[in-house]
Amino acid sequence: MTKLIIKPNRVTFAAPPDEMVLESGKKLGPITLVYETYGALSPAKDNAVLIFHALSGDQHVAGYHAEADEKPGWWDGMVGSGRAIDTDKYFVICANNIGGCQGSTGPSSINPKTGKPYALDFPVITIGDIVKAQTYLLDHLGIKKVFAATGGSMGGMEAMQLAVAFPDRVENVIPIATTARLSAQNIAFNEVGRRAILHDPNWNGGNYYDKTPPNNGLALARMIGHITYLSNESMHKKFGRELKGEKQFETNFDEAQFQVGNYLRYKGLRFTERFDANSYLYITKAADLFDLADGYPSLKDSLARAKNVKFLVISFGSDWLFPAEQSLVIVDALKDLGAHVSYKHIDSTYGHDAFLLETDELTVAIKGFLDAHYKEKK
Amino acid sequence: MTKLIIKPNRVTFAAPPDEMVLESGKKLGPITLVYETYGALSPAKDNAVLIFHALSGDQHVAGYHAEADEKPGWWDGMVGSGRAIDTDKYFVICANNIGGCQGSTGPSSINPKTGKPYALDFPVITIGDIVKAQTYLLDHLGIKKVFAATGGSMGGMEAMQLAVAFPDRVENVIPIATTARLSAQNIAFNEVGRRAILHDPNWNGGNYYDKTPPNNGLALARMIGHITYLSNESMHKKFGRELKGEKQFETNFDEAQFQVGNYLRYKGLRFTERFDANSYLYITKAADLFDLADGYPSLKDSLARAKNVKFLVISFGSDWLFPAEQSLVIVDALKDLGAHVSYKHIDSTYGHDAFLLETDELTVAIKGFLDAHYKEKK
Repeated sequence: MTKLIIKPNRVTFAAPPDEMVLESGKKLGPITLVYETYGALSPAKDNAVLIFHALSGDQHVAGYHAEADEKPGWWDGMVGSGRAIDTDKYFVICANNIGGCQGSTGPSSINPKTGKPYALDFPVITIGDIVKAQTYLLDHLGIKKVFAATGGSMGGMEAMQLAVAFPDRVENVIPIATTARLSAQNIAFNEVGRRAILHDPNWNGGNYYDKTPPNNGLALARMIGHITYLSNESMHKKFGRELKGEKQFETNFDEAQFQVGNYLRYKGLRFTERFDANSYLYITKAADLFDLADGYPSLKDSLARAKNVKFLVISFGSDWLFPAEQSLVIVDALKDLGAHVSYKHIDSTYGHDAFLLETDELTVAIKGFLDAHYKEKK
Repeated sequence: MTKLIIKPNRVTFAAPPDEMVLESGKKLGPITLVYETYGALSPAKDNAVLIFHALSGDQHVAGYHAEADEKPGWWDGMVGSGRAIDTDKYFVICANNIGGCQGSTGPSSINPKTGKPYALDFPVITIGDIVKAQTYLLDHLGIKKVFAATGGSMGGMEAMQLAVAFPDRVENVIPIATTARLSAQNIAFNEVGRRAILHDPNWNGGNYYDKTPPNNGLALARMIGHITYLSNESMHKKFGRELKGEKQFETNFDEAQFQVGNYLRYKGLRFTERFDANSYLYITKAADLFDLADGYPSLKDSLARAKNVKFLVISFGSDWLFPAEQSLVIVDALKDLGAHVSYKHIDSTYGHDAFLLETDELTVAIKGFLDAHYKEKK
């Protein structure tokens, strides 16, 4: 089988004096979004599926950037010809979020006012801002309304935010392994991750782009995050208490004694090769600040704006970062509204990462939902 | 009511050439243990209750060190006249573990060979070593066999270790909120905490006793630990998503935006005032290495050594660090042996910290168990 080779595109908008106004009231512009598309936009421009990526993800959903690439995009099992989000049928779009570090405007981008990276001059952004920026991309592509929007984890927050903030721009929304607001425990883990970065002497107040970056801090933040992405059970299955080599009584604390520690260190290290520490600060803050009910008396009132949008909410067993109860809060609010909502709980031992791994179960749920509604509207 | 004023005692033993042989084969000595006692030892010396403290605890179980002290010892609600572990009846002993930093020999103690703090010249210790050292204290006090041993979390591991390694020295054991071995997830959290210390430039390979200590790293490790001590529910009840002041869009990442972050920072900071970073490394490593079945074909074979010891195993709902399943593994192994075991699961929303907080429920369970067996033997 030949590899699907995909090239990222980019679009720049909101140039001064027409900057995008952020939720904070500050302005940001020009804004570049790096994005990828898969499949073809229908003449009626009514078959677009917008995928939002998670905290550390990017626009590279499926396929390969080059023949030599070993790994495909992060949701390759879900997106492609004949797959759940069938590129023979749908025009799939995924953009790197603003605040990110894969080419979309973020703290590592050049601030046109200074000619240097923004660093902490980059304004605080919210999930609302991230989504708003992507409506400019839809405008650029000439798409008034996407057929569907979906995403896992933070991507699911963004999909719901699109439905509430821009209900005329989306028909179907599939929030996966997500929440209408972070819990105190979620915020606590993010807080510790951020402090690991801030305490790294190489962080230097965010000004490290021409120096050694704060990779120790960023790796630590990622290690903490990674523990929350796995279930206790999946960690146990994967590592148990397996030692790395012989049980040792040496005081070389810098060597991980158990395989699980070794794995986390590897994951942390690899993350620093592709992620920017300041982006981690900004994006986790955006997640912390997210509350879908913000500005409304209740979540139900907020979701009332999206009452004509059809929802499929998906949660996973053993996901303790955003447990099923948090999905049920959303489902219940939508049911109270008499909105069109389906709920699928997938039994899994993979923890939060299930949204990336339970491809078969997700395919059954998502393919059915999308194709039925697509057929309906034809 | 007048405050019970308690003064710590100390005993030194295992002086060269009679050093204590550690599990690693290395030798440690002289060893000092700082300990406190409450109540009076019976003439028959048969009423001693040995309490083992948790990772970050110490020998100060109950009462006050001085009239001016605001806070009593860590288990004051459980230990005292008329309380669950009734000091009118029992002679209660608690020692600061070796490896610790409240006066017992640990990495911050002076290495007699160099006249300087051990730092990383301190040998790796295990739960077995910690317990073995306390048998010297029992010898010093002239106690052949303690009536009971108990402890929560790591203290529970130590109580079980005493029963398996020295079954003739204990009659009753009450392991609380504990496990026969750490899970991969437990080890993962410890690993991240240790790395936070190692990455603090002030750690300096462990040599910081005459310099600024690695308090940022130690505080981070404590913050991570603290999240695991609380349940999602108790964090939610305590903080929800409560903001610290106004919602802010400033890039002062060094300020916690939510109360939960503020609380964790405070807890982390306070911890550095009383704990030594190297002790944290050694003690978490001891916990990681703990496996009650180590050296035996199975946990059942290991516990078979303690088949004449009576057990009361206690677990808590919402404790996700050492969940009830881990207690049940112990209970089931003891039942298989036909050993004397009672099991009490206490419904709680406090998470792992419940062993410090659910005093009423614990009192019912522990007082009944101890008093019944004490009466029996009279």
